[in-house]
Amino acid sequence: MIGVFDSGVGGLSVVKEIAKVLPNYQIIYFGDTARLPYGTKGVDFVKKYSAKITSWLLDRGAKVVVIACHTSSAQAGDFLKEKFKNTPIFDMITPCAKNLSLYKKIGIIGTPGTIKSKAWEKHLLEKNPNLKIHSKPCPLFVSLVEEGWIDNNITKQIAKEYLKDFKNIQALILACTHYPMLEKIIKKTINTEIIDPAKVLVKELEFFLKDSAQIKLKKAKNEFFFSDEPYNLDKISYLCLKQKIKPIINDPF
Amino acid sequence: MIGVFDSGVGGLSVVKEIAKVLPNYQIIYFGDTARLPYGTKGVDFVKKYSAKITSWLLDRGAKVVVIACHTSSAQAGDFLKEKFKNTPIFDMITPCAKNLSLYKKIGIIGTPGTIKSKAWEKHLLEKNPNLKIHSKPCPLFVSLVEEGWIDNNITKQIAKEYLKDFKNIQALILACTHYPMLEKIIKKTINTEIIDPAKVLVKELEFFLKDSAQIKLKKAKNEFFFSDEPYNLDKISYLCLKQKIKPIINDPF
Repeated sequence: MIGVFDSGVGGLSVVKEIAKVLPNYQIIYFGDTARLPYGTKGVDFVKKYSAKITSWLLDRGAKVVVIACHTSSAQAGDFLKEKFKNTPIFDMITPCAKNLSLYKKIGIIGTPGTIKSKAWEKHLLEKNPNLKIHSKPCPLFVSLVEEGWIDNNITKQIAKEYLKDFKNIQALILACTHYPMLEKIIKKTINTEIIDPAKVLVKELEFFLKDSAQIKLKKAKNEFFFSDEPYNLDKISYLCLKQKIKPIINDPF
Repeated sequence: MIGVFDSGVGGLSVVKEIAKVLPNYQIIYFGDTARLPYGTKGVDFVKKYSAKITSWLLDRGAKVVVIACHTSSAQAGDFLKEKFKNTPIFDMITPCAKNLSLYKKIGIIGTPGTIKSKAWEKHLLEKNPNLKIHSKPCPLFVSLVEEGWIDNNITKQIAKEYLKDFKNIQALILACTHYPMLEKIIKKTINTEIIDPAKVLVKELEFFLKDSAQIKLKKAKNEFFFSDEPYNLDKISYLCLKQKIKPIINDPF
């Protein structure tokens, strides 16, 4: 069983990629809607709740944990890997960082929390110390996705405004789970490679599972837990999974 | 001492109005940034934390409590007045409802939670059963304020898109603490009376305090508590109070 968590519904875009590549594994999802968004919270808060959720997923039988939340990956990824040493934990940043060792200049967009943490910079520069990175928070993108304004004129203008400073980059990393839903508009606005970290993560997860006899296939139904009534779940789950999902709502903390 | 609470920093726009009219009263503010936004949370969650915060404000010496949060006013206002019978509690909705008894058609804009709760409709129709009400959630407005995009071209277009359905209304109620910061643009977009509920609430609070010998003046410094590091506090506090404030960060719950 693969445990996946996010601060809200955005992580369903990661579930989408996992289910596409690894359809035979059961997924258990936890969206911490009672405390979302993590992007505007402090580091200690994000660490504390990321650890609580990881424990909860393990208690329910998860053998692998995917941190689908970028803020949590940035602020709590290393902390969780240290704290849960015996559990394979995948975050949104590390797999990407390995793949960018030959790039010279890239861009990163994400929530204010993710960008402010500089965790992407830290991980990327560890692998490639000469990489030039331009990063920028784009908080309106989340609201635009939640409004369902995926392909309208206002969204195009906001994308243009946000992306105007990205000059001569070889790739742009979408460091927020909501942003891949705006990929079409972003691609039209900026002529560069667009990297969705979920896709990179899932490739790494696939390799790991192939080598790991310990984690068995289990064809049970995926389950979706939320700590509070999720906002616009139908819209987002349809955008990500092309279907409505039945949420189980309960705050265990 | 006047206790004021909100889910975040937006309630500072209410503090602004209180401080303008009642400068000799000490204000203690609590922003529940650890759990913001309330607008996408469930009703039980909002009631539970609104009650916790009210108790906390009373424990610290508040004699009057102002619910500066519209979601909490809508979903927990009646509940708090029932639960804390001996405390004068002011919410954002009730004072306005009294003032609109002669209107025929009005508009309301707010967060999804406030609009979905229909609490404004309920209170307004109690006082004026023939009132026609058109309401609409405008979630992007909060992100625009937090970006500081108070007076730019994109904000104008979003206002135009959101407000295009409001026809022949006599007044538009800004049912979210962030929206008064966009009042200029909203006024330019729609030719009608704009009502900021904070201003109406403060008038009622002023009358109440004049008649109440029990609540004494206390010229102490205002205090600002937050349950987690607030996002963009400097920007918002400057927009509202024309000064930076020193937050005290601690989650008592």
